[in-house]
Amino acid sequence: MTVMPRPVPPDALAAIRAIVGPKGWIDDPGDMAPFLRDERGLFVGKAPAVVRPAATAEVAEIVRICAANGIAIVPQGGNTGLCGGSVPFATGEAIVLALGRMNRVRAVDPINYTITVEAGVILAAVQAEADRHDRLFPLSLGAEGSCQIGGNLSTNAGGIQVLRYGNARDLVLGLEVVLPDGQVWDGLRGLRKDNTGYDLKQLFVGGEGTLGIVTAAVLKLFPKPREIRTAFVALPGHRQALELFAMARAASGDQLTAFELIPRIGLDISMRHVPGVTDPLAAPYPHYVLLEMSSSVPDGDIAATMDKLLDAAMAQGLVLDGTIAASAQQAAQLWRIREGIVEAQKHEGGSIKHDIAVPVSRVADFLDEATRRVEERLPGIRVVAFGHIGDGNIHFNLSQPPGADTKAYLARWEEFNEIVHRVVQGMNGSISAEHGVGRLKRDLLPQFKSAVEIELMRKVKRALDPLGIMNPGKVL
Amino acid sequence: MTVMPRPVPPDALAAIRAIVGPKGWIDDPGDMAPFLRDERGLFVGKAPAVVRPAATAEVAEIVRICAANGIAIVPQGGNTGLCGGSVPFATGEAIVLALGRMNRVRAVDPINYTITVEAGVILAAVQAEADRHDRLFPLSLGAEGSCQIGGNLSTNAGGIQVLRYGNARDLVLGLEVVLPDGQVWDGLRGLRKDNTGYDLKQLFVGGEGTLGIVTAAVLKLFPKPREIRTAFVALPGHRQALELFAMARAASGDQLTAFELIPRIGLDISMRHVPGVTDPLAAPYPHYVLLEMSSSVPDGDIAATMDKLLDAAMAQGLVLDGTIAASAQQAAQLWRIREGIVEAQKHEGGSIKHDIAVPVSRVADFLDEATRRVEERLPGIRVVAFGHIGDGNIHFNLSQPPGADTKAYLARWEEFNEIVHRVVQGMNGSISAEHGVGRLKRDLLPQFKSAVEIELMRKVKRALDPLGIMNPGKVL
Repeated sequence: MTVMPRPVPPDALAAIRAIVGPKGWIDDPGDMAPFLRDERGLFVGKAPAVVRPAATAEVAEIVRICAANGIAIVPQGGNTGLCGGSVPFATGEAIVLALGRMNRVRAVDPINYTITVEAGVILAAVQAEADRHDRLFPLSLGAEGSCQIGGNLSTNAGGIQVLRYGNARDLVLGLEVVLPDGQVWDGLRGLRKDNTGYDLKQLFVGGEGTLGIVTAAVLKLFPKPREIRTAFVALPGHRQALELFAMARAASGDQLTAFELIPRIGLDISMRHVPGVTDPLAAPYPHYVLLEMSSSVPDGDIAATMDKLLDAAMAQGLVLDGTIAASAQQAAQLWRIREGIVEAQKHEGGSIKHDIAVPVSRVADFLDEATRRVEERLPGIRVVAFGHIGDGNIHFNLSQPPGADTKAYLARWEEFNEIVHRVVQGMNGSISAEHGVGRLKRDLLPQFKSAVEIELMRKVKRALDPLGIMNPGKVL
Repeated sequence: MTVMPRPVPPDALAAIRAIVGPKGWIDDPGDMAPFLRDERGLFVGKAPAVVRPAATAEVAEIVRICAANGIAIVPQGGNTGLCGGSVPFATGEAIVLALGRMNRVRAVDPINYTITVEAGVILAAVQAEADRHDRLFPLSLGAEGSCQIGGNLSTNAGGIQVLRYGNARDLVLGLEVVLPDGQVWDGLRGLRKDNTGYDLKQLFVGGEGTLGIVTAAVLKLFPKPREIRTAFVALPGHRQALELFAMARAASGDQLTAFELIPRIGLDISMRHVPGVTDPLAAPYPHYVLLEMSSSVPDGDIAATMDKLLDAAMAQGLVLDGTIAASAQQAAQLWRIREGIVEAQKHEGGSIKHDIAVPVSRVADFLDEATRRVEERLPGIRVVAFGHIGDGNIHFNLSQPPGADTKAYLARWEEFNEIVHRVVQGMNGSISAEHGVGRLKRDLLPQFKSAVEIELMRKVKRALDPLGIMNPGKVL
């Protein structure tokens, strides 16, 4: 779907302004700027206005006006997305509809293990509200302090606990959605089982705002972990990391809540650029895994399980050295290494990024082959491959050779994408494991999905949004 | 969507016969009979032929011919559904497409914890194949010896382990689907994470064959439980069952894999009619719960967890008495009580059945109110309410008063549905928790779903199946 610039009728804008009032209306260029620019600064767009409705009824009224006038809408949450899905194009024909003012927790039902929240609630606030009721909302990712749950759902966010609790998609029981014609679908059910027809909610989860605007959701909660055990272990190579993962899963079942691969270069650059990050081990090693087990059983034997696992892994030579956090502070210290990698890469010159997934059984092959191919293409390129290998999800990021010209290096973004994505395709993998499609990967989809699948997506899009006003030019 | 009887062109039938050959063609009335009658005998239909393709390509060719000739298709798996979704109407204008010959296990990837199977594989065979690779496929239900995985997915089957592992919907990573125009969508991905566009597969899961024909699937596997602990406990009432559930979930986390409510009358009729069922406890009690904990940790402390839980529950008066199975045989004996209820009801005269779900926090209120209302309407009616209360899913079955006229009683099926479903609706519940819609509940949907939701479903149906040939008259 291509974007047809349409002049935005002033009277329609005035009607929208009347709905949201001054508090919900931004048209000053300076004030609009943060809403028009994406997280990575890859995309900067234009809009006649940013509207910030305070209630579902306001969203519905706005959408009806837009539908009547053919005005495109870009729904926006915390605008922390990495694929440009939540910012408008430079053509300036779309309004930005930001949901940040819809930030009420509507209900918490601890016995049903559910929480009902509006789209604009910050992810960290959802976690905190669950915690106040002695429950866990497990979705957790770097941007949790500023991203909004509506955006997390619209992009099917992943993060560090997918291994155990699934993606955002798996955490939703019900949705409230404003449809492209301005009707409100109240699908706010808190049921574990409901077999009365098509599962409509999963179209909007991960739909990136192209099929409707998620305004509220019923989310699953879980028993709060009573014991958490965090370990940072050194390994000779990534193949051993996969073997360790298999052992860990068998030995601990679903008590294994995180399993993150970290290459030595990731630790090196984190130490170099992120205050407070140090090497927890005495000597350097080629690879590391940050693994975490947690249990909701108050006095379980999780510590023993972790010890037994690591002893067995060391006996087999899978693990060379390691440390287990003795306190929450130490655990946070270990996590800072992992979280520091992304920040640290910014200080290492240009970074060409990939968010890929392959079957877990192919992760080691992927790392070998993709690394070989990019190093062949550009000697000195630095592969910083890290992430959620328990899900088969690797952030295969490529830092420029030291001292290379950053602009010239970044100009080869698509060239390296092509190399890496072909390897992914050969393993029946995904070129966007958790970041979505947005604008960044829209034009890549037809290369990696069958024509049949693209046409199926288009049929759904046309059926729900025949006018094409919902976030046009994104995903499709 | 209503069914328009259309004459089936003989030349089209001949072409279809040529595709499947004699092995895949049934048109003898006697041989067709079992394919034309549903499990409960509520619906008996007609068809010019039952076709049994042996490969996806054959299914695709057949669908193309049907699309070209406007021939309706009723996809059928094991035909064990309880809502008449897999049998044709008496108008005889649809062919039955039975998938039982597509029964190959295409691949098992133990490291990726996935299995790829064709639609016609019997559920028990999927479980057995997973077991051979030291993995668990957790979907488990009464019909597992004859139902087929394609049907399980098309109806989003539930069963006794949903509490821990989710519905069929939650166990699917990828699908292969023959679309209503005869194109094949190859969505057979084995990825834990894939954020490249709309989640199309969840339209076909639970779509009851109205959007396409599922021909193969990639399913999730899990670590095999190493320890299982099964207990049968007596309680003063169902409210205590809910309190016990909350305690059990907090105490055991996701080691709690089953939590089934059984009323005294359920045990009574099971003992009366099912060989080998006896009361495991010394005295009779008003309610029982069959609960099971399992762990993939070889030498975990699950036995201690169960003991601790039941001791605490007895100390609080939630549990009055109980027994813990000391062997797999004893566990099977306890499960026979639960599984015997459905069979036993057949010997107690007419049974008006409901498969409902409410939020777990409303289960006790539902049982009180629905029981009161049906007993007011018909003194002597016997409420046999049992099932998966950990999911909020109750099989609220109503046995006729002893000695009443069965035919006259069953004639009041809709009257009692109305009473029970209104209570469900008042609690924002579901009138079909795990059995689906099919024909049985199709006409009820508009009473319990908003016009907006029904229209959304219709839009999806029209977009994917504009000719309306896929299982017409079911669901919508």
